Amino acid sequence: MRKTSAGYDLKDLFIGSEGTLGVITRLTLRLHPLPEHVHTLRVFFPGVEEAAEASYRVMASGLPVARLELLDEFALKALNRHLGTGFPERPALFLEFHSSTREALEAESALALALVEEAGALEVEAAKTEEERRRQWEARHQAYWALVHLFPGHRFMITDTAVPLSRLPEMVRFAQGLLREMGLTGNILGHVGDGNFHTLIPVLPEDYPKAEAYAERLVEKALELGGTCTAEHGVGLRKRKFLPKEHGPALEWMRRLKALFDPEGLLNPGKVV
Amino acid sequence: MRKTSAGYDLKDLFIGSEGTLGVITRLTLRLHPLPEHVHTLRVFFPGVEEAAEASYRVMASGLPVARLELLDEFALKALNRHLGTGFPERPALFLEFHSSTREALEAESALALALVEEAGALEVEAAKTEEERRRQWEARHQAYWALVHLFPGHRFMITDTAVPLSRLPEMVRFAQGLLREMGLTGNILGHVGDGNFHTLIPVLPEDYPKAEAYAERLVEKALELGGTCTAEHGVGLRKRKFLPKEHGPALEWMRRLKALFDPEGLLNPGKVV
Repeated sequence: MRKTSAGYDLKDLFIGSEGTLGVITRLTLRLHPLPEHVHTLRVFFPGVEEAAEASYRVMASGLPVARLELLDEFALKALNRHLGTGFPERPALFLEFHSSTREALEAESALALALVEEAGALEVEAAKTEEERRRQWEARHQAYWALVHLFPGHRFMITDTAVPLSRLPEMVRFAQGLLREMGLTGNILGHVGDGNFHTLIPVLPEDYPKAEAYAERLVEKALELGGTCTAEHGVGLRKRKFLPKEHGPALEWMRRLKALFDPEGLLNPGKVV
Repeated sequence: MRKTSAGYDLKDLFIGSEGTLGVITRLTLRLHPLPEHVHTLRVFFPGVEEAAEASYRVMASGLPVARLELLDEFALKALNRHLGTGFPERPALFLEFHSSTREALEAESALALALVEEAGALEVEAAKTEEERRRQWEARHQAYWALVHLFPGHRFMITDTAVPLSRLPEMVRFAQGLLREMGLTGNILGHVGDGNFHTLIPVLPEDYPKAEAYAERLVEKALELGGTCTAEHGVGLRKRKFLPKEHGPALEWMRRLKALFDPEGLLNPGKVV
């Protein structure tokens, strides 16, 4: 059911616990209706900061956004080379709106356009066919593989911070500036409607420590802005060291929960807390 | 931030724990933008079952519903007497849609109208002014007090089950039939967009056990339909006995959580688990 207050919320305790509290043997999923009408856009900006500002404005407007993805110039260059596509090579937002009625969809898309133009959009392309729409999202999903193919023999660092939406432009500017400052190249892309983006950095194996230092500075900045060290990729081993700063005394309670559910430390040992 | 996977979800563990795991001394709230455009409707049906069916269809359509409240004939009679209002005295849905654009709002309201008419709506009234809108929701909020004023010297049983949306019409029919079968009178009203409604039953003090028996049978039916014994009012003392059936072996883990956070049993003792 959609609402209950019968006892403690064990479900959300297990979600994101990375197998450290128990083994999930059966899941019940809630189904959502497929949208009747879909509108898919690509909007291009002079810089990533304008793109981040536009995504903040779109989210703050209360528009029912279904997808809102940032791709920087470098990501689009890599995609054009890997897939043979012809996307403008500028920082972009890929957006999608879902609605129950065509009229609502059109009105909402028009408002979104006005908002991104106010934030400095240079160019807008709408997907005219289902095929074009499919290709747009296929491209987004290929962003990682495009880099992998363009940088054979490299290792890849993928960062995963999130910050409150209002701090997103500052965070994106910091991430891009730090790449330049540290002499790294990398993609910035991600689910900016959630305040979450990733920097994908190809490095030669001997330069990996530099990429690690970058990732660490990004986490510190995210925490400083009231964000999180990991939005969706999880803690695993490498992000354990940031939890004391992010959670303070709550971390001790997380450790006690781990000890309660897994007193012998058998479940995904060494991870998370 | 809107998204994090850094460690275990303590926030949702505390939400709904009724003060049994700890004392909340500080809260950070997420703000949502006020809607730009609002459309408020009252829709009247021949029976509560049709009203429940309509609410299921509206929710399943994916429409962005902001409020969806059921009030039965008895509730509207009580409100008209208590407030001097002139609502049709038939089972009703009170609905509200929020949107960022007027065009979207109009299109969505039109679709909602078509859906409720398909489900058997007899009459639709739209709030034409902010004042009328305010009065409609004020009436909804007065539903409990209207009963209290009409039944001096009575005690009031308030049930609080929720079921999956697709089972809502069956659940509402059961709740109303059981009132008749047990010779009780009562309001059926609530947040049917969540599959949740309340039956408000005025009884003379000596008849209270009968109302308790009614409430118990309603919970049994809700659990049979995959629902919950309490959607939002909480477990407290009276619903503890239903938790073994609702949660099975998970209840033992809830008890262990209670013992972990409150080994001496000082926090809201005796409640929930």
